[in-house]
Amino acid sequence: MKLRLFFIIVGCILLLAGYAHYFTENELFQFITSSIAIVFLAAWLGKSTESVAHYAGDRIGGFLNATFGNAAELIIAFFLVKEGLFEMVKASITGAIIGNLLLVLGLSVLLGGLKYKEQTFNSKLASHNASLMMLAIVALFIPAVFMKELPPIKIETLSIVIAVLLIIAYVLWLVFSMITHRDFLSDIETHESEALWSKSVSMIMLGISTFFVAVVSEWLVHSVHQVSTSLGWSELFVGAFVIAIIGNAAEHSAALLLALKGRIGAAVEIAVGSSLQIALFVAPTLVLISLLMGRPMDIVFTTFELAAIGVATVITISITRDGATNWFEGVLLLAVYLILGTAFFFI
Amino acid sequence: MKLRLFFIIVGCILLLAGYAHYFTENELFQFITSSIAIVFLAAWLGKSTESVAHYAGDRIGGFLNATFGNAAELIIAFFLVKEGLFEMVKASITGAIIGNLLLVLGLSVLLGGLKYKEQTFNSKLASHNASLMMLAIVALFIPAVFMKELPPIKIETLSIVIAVLLIIAYVLWLVFSMITHRDFLSDIETHESEALWSKSVSMIMLGISTFFVAVVSEWLVHSVHQVSTSLGWSELFVGAFVIAIIGNAAEHSAALLLALKGRIGAAVEIAVGSSLQIALFVAPTLVLISLLMGRPMDIVFTTFELAAIGVATVITISITRDGATNWFEGVLLLAVYLILGTAFFFI
Amino acid sequence: MKLRLFFIIVGCILLLAGYAHYFTENELFQFITSSIAIVFLAAWLGKSTESVAHYAGDRIGGFLNATFGNAAELIIAFFLVKEGLFEMVKASITGAIIGNLLLVLGLSVLLGGLKYKEQTFNSKLASHNASLMMLAIVALFIPAVFMKELPPIKIETLSIVIAVLLIIAYVLWLVFSMITHRDFLSDIETHESEALWSKSVSMIMLGISTFFVAVVSEWLVHSVHQVSTSLGWSELFVGAFVIAIIGNAAEHSAALLLALKGRIGAAVEIAVGSSLQIALFVAPTLVLISLLMGRPMDIVFTTFELAAIGVATVITISITRDGATNWFEGVLLLAVYLILGTAFFFI
Repeated sequence: MKLRLFFIIVGCILLLAGYAHYFTENELFQFITSSIAIVFLAAWLGKSTESVAHYAGDRIGGFLNATFGNAAELIIAFFLVKEGLFEMVKASITGAIIGNLLLVLGLSVLLGGLKYKEQTFNSKLASHNASLMMLAIVALFIPAVFMKELPPIKIETLSIVIAVLLIIAYVLWLVFSMITHRDFLSDIETHESEALWSKSVSMIMLGISTFFVAVVSEWLVHSVHQVSTSLGWSELFVGAFVIAIIGNAAEHSAALLLALKGRIGAAVEIAVGSSLQIALFVAPTLVLISLLMGRPMDIVFTTFELAAIGVATVITISITRDGATNWFEGVLLLAVYLILGTAFFFI
Repeated sequence: MKLRLFFIIVGCILLLAGYAHYFTENELFQFITSSIAIVFLAAWLGKSTESVAHYAGDRIGGFLNATFGNAAELIIAFFLVKEGLFEMVKASITGAIIGNLLLVLGLSVLLGGLKYKEQTFNSKLASHNASLMMLAIVALFIPAVFMKELPPIKIETLSIVIAVLLIIAYVLWLVFSMITHRDFLSDIETHESEALWSKSVSMIMLGISTFFVAVVSEWLVHSVHQVSTSLGWSELFVGAFVIAIIGNAAEHSAALLLALKGRIGAAVEIAVGSSLQIALFVAPTLVLISLLMGRPMDIVFTTFELAAIGVATVITISITRDGATNWFEGVLLLAVYLILGTAFFFI
Repeated sequence: MKLRLFFIIVGCILLLAGYAHYFTENELFQFITSSIAIVFLAAWLGKSTESVAHYAGDRIGGFLNATFGNAAELIIAFFLVKEGLFEMVKASITGAIIGNLLLVLGLSVLLGGLKYKEQTFNSKLASHNASLMMLAIVALFIPAVFMKELPPIKIETLSIVIAVLLIIAYVLWLVFSMITHRDFLSDIETHESEALWSKSVSMIMLGISTFFVAVVSEWLVHSVHQVSTSLGWSELFVGAFVIAIIGNAAEHSAALLLALKGRIGAAVEIAVGSSLQIALFVAPTLVLISLLMGRPMDIVFTTFELAAIGVATVITISITRDGATNWFEGVLLLAVYLILGTAFFFI
């Protein structure tokens, strides 16, 4: 019954967003309807992912969540690259990383922590993820440090080399975690997650919801530029916070649901895994795609963006290192998010 | 007998400092007498605190030590804010943080380590403190990074937002450590601490010694400016090192006594807890007080100050993370303190 | 039999390098022959060291490896200081540190990890080394931060004070690890290492091979400048990567051999110990030597060099903290090395 109601709502929102996109000129209306649609679609995507994860086990489930949670970000960023809005791309990458590490993880840890006094998870995984995030930061940090003294052509070459190295590292990480050390990193406790549909229906649901997220993401990109101008918000703030919060809604719903069920390990996996995938896979992929499109985007982030990513990573590592979380650690993550959000808003 | 002798000395020093303040014009004489008075008063305050801590238990005792240890800093800073000496305030905040983390903790760990081969403590607490210190650094670091591009009015607003967020985080930390997770973080081993007086006398002693520290701190502030000029020392160095060492004398005596009794956990609690309180409570409180006074102080620290705080925090986290200390770790902390002191001296 | 063949090869290479140095003018020929000679000599030195280490135990053995592995770097740097090539000295110090932490350790962890699923070692030692590396970074970082505002004479004094503090810390570290806490840090498992010769012959072999490394290092320095110019490589890149890889060959062979025998603890000891010795002993010693020579070298590294050292240290700490390594962690270290190498190459 509840499910039927949910799909009726999703259908109505989709029709409304489609109407706004194709038949009206009001960008604020377009922006609001497509944002709401994406949030609902993300919930659908979250449910489908959780259902598939039920059949796939905790770890693969977490990986699926992260992969399909980033579909929206990747598609939005793709269209931004296509239109040459490189600064907006980098802002949305930054926002997606800090949104996952601070907002998604912070809310999961806080709400989970209010229900359970202490939640524990595999700290070996957290330690490994920390090293990977360090690599990502180093990779994004180096071009910015060395940039000032380099001519544009060298920046471009350096960006491509780093992009390729990051993708190789990411592929080797998949080999490591899925093949050679699969058992090694698996969460010890495996709680039950609810499955709304049978295995095959879950897969189909995952496909359909991903498709709709993609379509509506495109509508969103079309309206976001005008809306940010009319509200007087900087593109940096819109890219890093507004877009990222909407784009991360899937991770939000999935991670929060898991945290409230006591599966904080899977929630951490979603939030940190999603950030890793954005930094090690989405960002370098966009650099290489821009090259194929003939308008090469460099991998040089601004000092603010690097400071935000660095700060988010360090505080996340500090909190997840011991393989246990409590509500106050969620407060800390959210406090850092609010401080960064305020700072970005004022620029 | 020893106690009576102690109070006679304290009385004489207080009279001497009072005489110097009210009846002479020699600032160096005023400065030296009030400095010595504060050091003795700090010892008294330390004894009182330890005595109260005896009745209150390790953790509350550590909290009391940190609270009353910072009374001097808060009062000195209050008068500096009142006189609009904002740079001096920030230097003394910086000096209090690095003095606690490097000098107080370094001496405690070194001297405790010369007596005991290895001293251990609750590493969960150390891990939590590390995350809180990270938050403090992030909060102080963000305005400095974003400052260059912002107009003064935005800097001010950003400072107030950050100050409020820090105070909220601090209050929630007290809720966490005193109420919801009190047992969770408590030190496992609870050694006996000596109580010089009965519970009620201890409380009265604490009140009186705090009062005298406050009065003499004011005398000190009056003389320090002229003295630093006549010795040719920069205000940055005086604020960050001279004032901070005198102001931290209470933590020194209390933490050292505990470390020598093998209670390194309580000593770490004093040093790190005191730094946390300065960064998360004293600094933002001063920002808000300055606002009420009509002369708003921003929360923007200089690069040197942030480098010093950041470096002190990172090395402290690195050393306390494993919940065990030895003499060489004390040497490391002191070496970093000397390096920073030399650098500040030469500016 | 194999040994005899090895010494015949070493003899031939030495004769060839000597011929090139004394009887030809072709710098590229001189450079290549002395480079190859040093690599072979380093293998000899590695064998001798391993043999001596067999008699001395894991820890002293690791210390010996680190000490004699740095002989080449120290001698090269000595001649560079003598010729006033201070920038080249700092580049080679930087290269030696990141070469040890990223290339030597990365290859050891990767190759060891391909053979063994997981290799473990004393994580207490790793934690201690982390704190020491932090001290080294702080010490090198402070002068660079404070430099811009200081006149040259103060930079010089600050450099000397920091150099003396670092050497004192290093000596106290030896006291700690060799005397007061010797048992405390020792590796628990003590595997057998092969000894090629008797104890006394091993010592003699160590002496002779060290001597030859020294002589050929001097030949190398004479040719390296012209070669870098003719190839169009910057001195920074040559110092930090070419020289450092050749100079680190001893650590390479020794650490790799140990890692392949499952003794990753000893390999980590070589790589990290060698970096520590360069940062805490070789670098400050060179500052003091330059003072004695009447041409004082400051201890101020460039932003690129500090970024590289900082990044290498942070990623190494992140990976070795848990006292266990696997092949993917080797990949991460090597990826960071390649990213830094690419960045230095493009400057």
